[in-house]
Amino acid sequence: MIRRLTIVGVGLLGGSVARAARTHRLAAEIVGIGRDRGRLAPAVADGTLDRATTDLAEGVREADVVVLAATVLASEALLGDLWPMLPAGALVTDVGSTKTGIVRRADALAATRDDVHFVGSHPMAGSEKSGYGAARADLFRDALVILTPTGATAPAATKRVTALWETMGARTVVLDPETHDRAVAAVSHLPHLVAWALVDAVSRFEPAALAGAARGFKDTTRFAASVPAVWRVIVLASRGPALASLDHFRRALDELTALVAAADGAPLEATLARIRDAREAVR
Amino acid sequence: MIRRLTIVGVGLLGGSVARAARTHRLAAEIVGIGRDRGRLAPAVADGTLDRATTDLAEGVREADVVVLAATVLASEALLGDLWPMLPAGALVTDVGSTKTGIVRRADALAATRDDVHFVGSHPMAGSEKSGYGAARADLFRDALVILTPTGATAPAATKRVTALWETMGARTVVLDPETHDRAVAAVSHLPHLVAWALVDAVSRFEPAALAGAARGFKDTTRFAASVPAVWRVIVLASRGPALASLDHFRRALDELTALVAAADGAPLEATLARIRDAREAVR
Repeated sequence: MIRRLTIVGVGLLGGSVARAARTHRLAAEIVGIGRDRGRLAPAVADGTLDRATTDLAEGVREADVVVLAATVLASEALLGDLWPMLPAGALVTDVGSTKTGIVRRADALAATRDDVHFVGSHPMAGSEKSGYGAARADLFRDALVILTPTGATAPAATKRVTALWETMGARTVVLDPETHDRAVAAVSHLPHLVAWALVDAVSRFEPAALAGAARGFKDTTRFAASVPAVWRVIVLASRGPALASLDHFRRALDELTALVAAADGAPLEATLARIRDAREAVR
Repeated sequence: MIRRLTIVGVGLLGGSVARAARTHRLAAEIVGIGRDRGRLAPAVADGTLDRATTDLAEGVREADVVVLAATVLASEALLGDLWPMLPAGALVTDVGSTKTGIVRRADALAATRDDVHFVGSHPMAGSEKSGYGAARADLFRDALVILTPTGATAPAATKRVTALWETMGARTVVLDPETHDRAVAAVSHLPHLVAWALVDAVSRFEPAALAGAARGFKDTTRFAASVPAVWRVIVLASRGPALASLDHFRRALDELTALVAAADGAPLEATLARIRDAREAVR
């Protein structure tokens, strides 16, 4: 049982952590920190937060667990700000979709004081909506949360963060931060970029086609409905792996294009069959 | 009411036409033609077809409506074979996803005899499954069927084909064949090719990432589960428009990649917002 849980950034993800923590009685007290008191008010009014503040020092005072749920780069900066303010023994985690930067920052901070702990988390849950209004107590139920402890992370800290997410209904897996960033770029950032390019190509070059777009087209471009202000930050925070995965994609697309251009059915079918098998192997 | 409806190719689409025709009492008699008697047997056994034959001339004898539901190129060839066999006044349509080729062929055949009529149809419904086992009487309910009559098509023929599809629950729109092929390449063939390239890139270059692939990745690559033998034919039959739409896509992707590489948030966000708006405009 957590005595005081502090959540920095009470939007979709932070708000859902707060709601899930409330539902599962994870903490005696839940505190929210945000930049705008007005936007924190609904979470206090509906009883999700016990109190809210715009002051970082006040918000993390006596917190035993802190969840950073601002944007990726903001959370990284906030980690440095709050590290000296935390009570001894405090545990910090985050919800960012890029991990190398914040984990590296935490390792550097650990050199300044080693009685607080950070374990990176990336819950792979809903990104097309944003804001506290979309927060749900069950957002993490059956979701996959990737944890990114390093060799320097205390095993007990990893265990506590694992328990936190599992209590909210999530499954957890452990990856090192670099592997995580490459994998997420491949299965999340790349499909987003491809969906945007797809909608852009059709809307610019075949606008009339969009009117008759079948359900399938809308389904497969669902990622293109994601919030631009959120994804601007996510993509740029993971720029290196995102560009690498774009490169891989372009290579695969060029090969497929060459097969179509060659008008040779047998190798085209063999390639499609190989790819379908690879996708079917995904559980 | 159709006296004798003949369906050439009793797979997913042809079988669904037969089942829908039976359900909606569209025809007094429904005849199926296929290359393999064994594969026709289930549709006779379950009462969907009144009879089945592997002989084209026998199957179309006294047919007032013929639906070509083989693969795109096979249907195009079959149209030429059966044209001289048809009774005067017969109406032919098809279910192919590429229209320029078969429509041009029909126009040429009309010069040899003008007492039979062809109107191209493209029902935009389910292509990830195949075979009669997946056929459903309601496959066309609420589906969009694109009709491609030309200036040479008798208006009465277009009206009869429209009524045929609408009785099965579909909405219909009319496009000229070339516009149809460009539009379908953009909203169907291109997304398929992109989905294959996406799965291929990830499975080859980040195979470990596939194991943790979120639901979103499987959703957006649903097209990559399509039947290779079917799509080999579809893509090659529409090679010109498919390559043109790949070109457009590559241009959009290059622009987006340049924005990510430049690491400049504001223009990236503006582009994502513009694309999201374009997608939201799709009804």
